[in-house]
Amino acid sequence: MQMSYEECIKACLECMEACNSCYDACLKEDDVKMMSDCIRYNRECADICALAAQAMQSDSPLAKHICQFCAEICDACGKICEQHGHAEHCRKCAEACRKCAEACRKMAS
Amino acid sequence: MQMSYEECIKACLECMEACNSCYDACLKEDDVKMMSDCIRYNRECADICALAAQAMQSDSPLAKHICQFCAEICDACGKICEQHGHAEHCRKCAEACRKCAEACRKMAS
Amino acid sequence: MQMSYEECIKACLECMEACNSCYDACLKEDDVKMMSDCIRYNRECADICALAAQAMQSDSPLAKHICQFCAEICDACGKICEQHGHAEHCRKCAEACRKCAEACRKMAS
Amino acid sequence: MQMSYEECIKACLECMEACNSCYDACLKEDDVKMMSDCIRYNRECADICALAAQAMQSDSPLAKHICQFCAEICDACGKICEQHGHAEHCRKCAEACRKCAEACRKMAS
Repeated sequence: MQMSYEECIKACLECMEACNSCYDACLKEDDVKMMSDCIRYNRECADICALAAQAMQSDSPLAKHICQFCAEICDACGKICEQHGHAEHCRKCAEACRKCAEACRKMAS
Repeated sequence: MQMSYEECIKACLECMEACNSCYDACLKEDDVKMMSDCIRYNRECADICALAAQAMQSDSPLAKHICQFCAEICDACGKICEQHGHAEHCRKCAEACRKCAEACRKMAS
Repeated sequence: MQMSYEECIKACLECMEACNSCYDACLKEDDVKMMSDCIRYNRECADICALAAQAMQSDSPLAKHICQFCAEICDACGKICEQHGHAEHCRKCAEACRKCAEACRKMAS
Repeated sequence: MQMSYEECIKACLECMEACNSCYDACLKEDDVKMMSDCIRYNRECADICALAAQAMQSDSPLAKHICQFCAEICDACGKICEQHGHAEHCRKCAEACRKCAEACRKMAS
């Protein structure tokens, strides 16, 4: 089944939101130090999801290429979030990353 | 009535999408030169809407300040789009800019 | 004296670098929690300095407007960094913010 | 020979500047339509160079990965600019893309 721009943009924007919420929640944890990697991955992943969404919205000739890269970053971010699976915000973020990676990979293919 | 983060984020993301679609449509017009200002404003406005959405999603201490600025940029972009009101994409973009400016102004107040 | 685009772009790029270095150093501190505000301001300020530099480099009709806003964000970020003046990276970042705010204000006027 | 962060950041920032200047110059050409692809690639490439520079400046765990991707986008943008080699700004931009791709590839390896 083919992936439409619309569905993939939706997955990217949901992942951007989950990453930014997780970034915020990590910075509000008691032990922020333990979450420092998660904070870093969340920032990058949110920025790249925004980039991918904008590329699809503007029908960029690089849209598929950017989606392929976005999938890889979502994989990496999701893996870090899974390691912090005790925190609800990390579980949610890992799930959003998994869905976005899947959508972006379909888009890129 | 107070504006919630959720509503204002929605308005910013819809304006980002409208600006990117308008940017794309302007670049596909027969007379691109006539649309060059619109292309420039669309790019800036889309980027600032993304910034504002991300600031609210991460509960940034600068979120209101960024929303105030986003409202001003949406006003400027909407004004340019209105001047190209013969094009459907510009009319849509002007409307999204108007709504986003209104939401951001309420958020900032 | 007038501010040239070139000088102001340089100040923005130096401030972006100082903010990103400070963000990194804050996340490597023993007590990350104490630095959480600084981390947030650094991220926003770096992104807005990048936006301002790109606006000037592309001779955007919104360049002055964005510089005015960049000056305000640099003021806010510099104030937070000054409060953490025991850390060398915060002192450096506060200084870069001060210089960038000054350059951007001249540009905007 | 190894590539230092400092050198690679410099190449990314120079490419970002060249792309934004080329974007601006393309929008000021008499025949903007002919340059529409170049405008699109310049925007993406400038944004990704900014992302790569920020990732290195903040010692992101994803810095090398982002540099690898930046090299691919610079290759693509440089190729488009070469096709418009009659314009000085496109020649300059193609050269900056070539240097940035080379630096990013060394960084990623």
